[in-house]
Amino acid sequence: MLRPEHKEIMKSRRRNLKITLAYDGTNYHGFQRQNRVLAVQNVLEDVFTKLCGDTIELAAAGRTDAGVHAKMQVVNFFTNGTIPTENIVRAGNRLLPQDIVLLDAQEVDRDFSALHSTRSKVYEYRIYYSPVRNPFRDRYALFVDKPLNYQAMAEALRYIIGEHDFTSFKSSGGNDTSPIREIYEATCTQHSDEYVFSFFGSGFLYHMVRNLMGLILNIGLGKYEPAYILDVLKAKDRSCAGKMAPAHGLYLSQVNYE
Amino acid sequence: MLRPEHKEIMKSRRRNLKITLAYDGTNYHGFQRQNRVLAVQNVLEDVFTKLCGDTIELAAAGRTDAGVHAKMQVVNFFTNGTIPTENIVRAGNRLLPQDIVLLDAQEVDRDFSALHSTRSKVYEYRIYYSPVRNPFRDRYALFVDKPLNYQAMAEALRYIIGEHDFTSFKSSGGNDTSPIREIYEATCTQHSDEYVFSFFGSGFLYHMVRNLMGLILNIGLGKYEPAYILDVLKAKDRSCAGKMAPAHGLYLSQVNYE
Repeated sequence: MLRPEHKEIMKSRRRNLKITLAYDGTNYHGFQRQNRVLAVQNVLEDVFTKLCGDTIELAAAGRTDAGVHAKMQVVNFFTNGTIPTENIVRAGNRLLPQDIVLLDAQEVDRDFSALHSTRSKVYEYRIYYSPVRNPFRDRYALFVDKPLNYQAMAEALRYIIGEHDFTSFKSSGGNDTSPIREIYEATCTQHSDEYVFSFFGSGFLYHMVRNLMGLILNIGLGKYEPAYILDVLKAKDRSCAGKMAPAHGLYLSQVNYE
Repeated sequence: MLRPEHKEIMKSRRRNLKITLAYDGTNYHGFQRQNRVLAVQNVLEDVFTKLCGDTIELAAAGRTDAGVHAKMQVVNFFTNGTIPTENIVRAGNRLLPQDIVLLDAQEVDRDFSALHSTRSKVYEYRIYYSPVRNPFRDRYALFVDKPLNYQAMAEALRYIIGEHDFTSFKSSGGNDTSPIREIYEATCTQHSDEYVFSFFGSGFLYHMVRNLMGLILNIGLGKYEPAYILDVLKAKDRSCAGKMAPAHGLYLSQVNYE
């Protein structure tokens, strides 16, 4: 994530800061810094550069896609800036737009990396069922106008728990070296007309949760039996899993370190 | 609301349609049609013109301000279009952006006017209290980082029930002829960290709910005693009530006819 020539500059700096934040991803072209369009990283680096006085490049726990939200994202950066750590949240939130919020700032060991020190993550996916679209929920959950089979989806989720080769659920274009990932927990809870899916795992491949959710949604709609997810896993072929679920139902919701 | 020269054209048309809808007002410069910026009315008239085949001008129950939401807005228009009434919701929602949703369509008597036949309305105002801003709630409720005194706000609300001269809570610029309005009910309910204020009345002056909420918020923060709202009412002077509350916490939530 850091450009190689900048790694040394960063490492020569005095403090390593770990920042926890949340954002509504609707208006951003994803987390990762881009040149011509606005990403969350651009906004954060600008604000931290202002607060710290030296040019900031940061690393993040998860490079969320365009439109994906984060209830908890973690970044870190090195700085010689003298702003007291306890002032960063308040000062940063004054400069940030309303859809990005800093939650915590801590000075951490020099060897901490928000990206590489991650031990596990939780992603959430939200779907709401309603006869008509609800304009106040549409940014934050996927709308479906047909009822979903809760039992079938819960059964499908149980099949993906454990260590698997998730090649069938990995979009091309990521930097992942191995397609093996371990899912510790995969659950669905229903709160009246809303379904909240939760995926707790060691790590996730590129688009893995959205590809899983595309298939689970079709299982919920009765297009496939729950056990079909096992066939798709075994096939190790991306074309078997069908269309991926849209970005706006997805949240990076927890990042765990040592 | 209808331009005078168009009133006759409209009245000569065959059907009077009453449409109920909801919208997230964040991205619109209010409900009422404008020339250089996008209003909800522009979007609706374009869509109904496409569906009906004749140029539509509509009247609405409430001209919500820029950024104000509607859980229930009602409009009506006259058309010679042949689209079956029962197809309008589905066909309209296919053409509308995600933040505007049609809920119901009915053919009504020729003398029904969404604007003039209104008997009463309910406005809601939402505030959430949190130590830090929540990016997923910020579009739909006013954020406060200090706790509010629920009892004091509930007491202040009781003072405005009944018929009053609301001059002190009316912004300049509206078309209101009399400053007298009757409030049937004014309540506050607290759901964990969210306060939902509800104002049920015969009608409301320009910015009246936001001006009331500006003062009630200051009462909740302890800046004034609850009974101060009576002094402000009696003063009949807009400058006494202080700053009006922001648009994004406000919802037109119910419109009642005969």
